[in-house]
Amino acid sequence: MIAILRIGHRPDRDKRITTHVCLVARAFGASRILVDLADRELENTFNSVNDRFGEGASIETGVKWRRVIGEWKGIIAHLTMYGMELDEAVAAIKEKDIDADVLVIVGAEKVPGEVYKAADFNISVGNQPHSEVAALAMFLDRYFDGNALKDLKGKMKIIPSNEGKVVVEE
Amino acid sequence: MIAILRIGHRPDRDKRITTHVCLVARAFGASRILVDLADRELENTFNSVNDRFGEGASIETGVKWRRVIGEWKGIIAHLTMYGMELDEAVAAIKEKDIDADVLVIVGAEKVPGEVYKAADFNISVGNQPHSEVAALAMFLDRYFDGNALKDLKGKMKIIPSNEGKVVVEE
Repeated sequence: MIAILRIGHRPDRDKRITTHVCLVARAFGASRILVDLADRELENTFNSVNDRFGEGASIETGVKWRRVIGEWKGIIAHLTMYGMELDEAVAAIKEKDIDADVLVIVGAEKVPGEVYKAADFNISVGNQPHSEVAALAMFLDRYFDGNALKDLKGKMKIIPSNEGKVVVEE
Repeated sequence: MIAILRIGHRPDRDKRITTHVCLVARAFGASRILVDLADRELENTFNSVNDRFGEGASIETGVKWRRVIGEWKGIIAHLTMYGMELDEAVAAIKEKDIDADVLVIVGAEKVPGEVYKAADFNISVGNQPHSEVAALAMFLDRYFDGNALKDLKGKMKIIPSNEGKVVVEE
C-alpha cells in the first residue's frame, strides 16, 4: 500500500498544485492521500472525481503530519530535489522490504529538516528543479514497474481514441 | 528536437501549473517552450533556472499558437485525457518518423476542437483525470526511453545524496 503525505500545503497558493498531486496519486495507484492543512474544497473536488471516474484513493485533509510520520509502520520515502537517484532508491526500497507500506512525502516549497531525517529514503527525480507533481508520477511509475496507471471503473469512462473525445457515461 | 506548446495559459489561474509544465519540459529534455499568453514573469522565472542550473530549453511567451501549429514541419502530438494510449502512441510517432521534430501541445482545461484535428496524435497518459504536468513528464520519459532526465551543467549542481541537501555552487 502506498500513501501520500502532502505537507506545506497552502490553500491560497498551492490549490491547483496540491489538486494535481492528489489526482496523480489516485491515477498512479496510491491508496491513501493525507494533506496537512484542512481543505474541504480539495476534498470535495477529489471525491467528485472518485464518484465519477471510479473509487480510487481516499483523501483526508487536516492531518497532523508529525504524528503520521512518527506512527508510520513501514518505509518513509521523501521526494526532494536533494536525494538518491530514483531508480537506485526504488530498488533499495524493495530490497529493504518489498511488502512494506510506503509513505511518500511530497512537500511544497520549504520542507523542514526533520523530514529529511525522518525519511528512510530521500529521493531525487533527476537533479534539476521541476515539479513535485511530475516527481510523484515518476516515482509511482517506477515503483509499480511502469504499470502504475490504473484502469478504474466509474460512471464515466474514457475510451482511448486518436479521434478526440470518447466518453461513455453509464 | 522536442518543442512544447502550452495553450490556454491564464497567468492568474495557471501561473504555477504553467511554471511546472515549463520546468518539466526543461528537466526532461525538451528544447523549446512556447506559451500562448505573454507572461514576462514566467520568462524571468524560467530563465533564472537556466542561469543557475544550466542552459536547458529556451522559452518564448506570447506566441500565436494557431500559426505555430500551422507552420510546424514535423509531428504534432497533443496530450489529452482523450487519446491513444501512451506507449502505443510513442511507438507510432517513432514509426512515422523517428527524426521528426515533435511539437507537444499541452493544454489548460479547455482545448479547442481544432487542436484535436490538427494533431497527428492525440495521446492519453492513462484514462483517468490527473495532471498535464505529470502527463508531459511521462510522455518525455517514454519518448526518451526512460533517459529523459537531463544532467545539465550550471553554476549550481545538486549532488544525489540520501543525507539531505548537497548543493555545489561554483
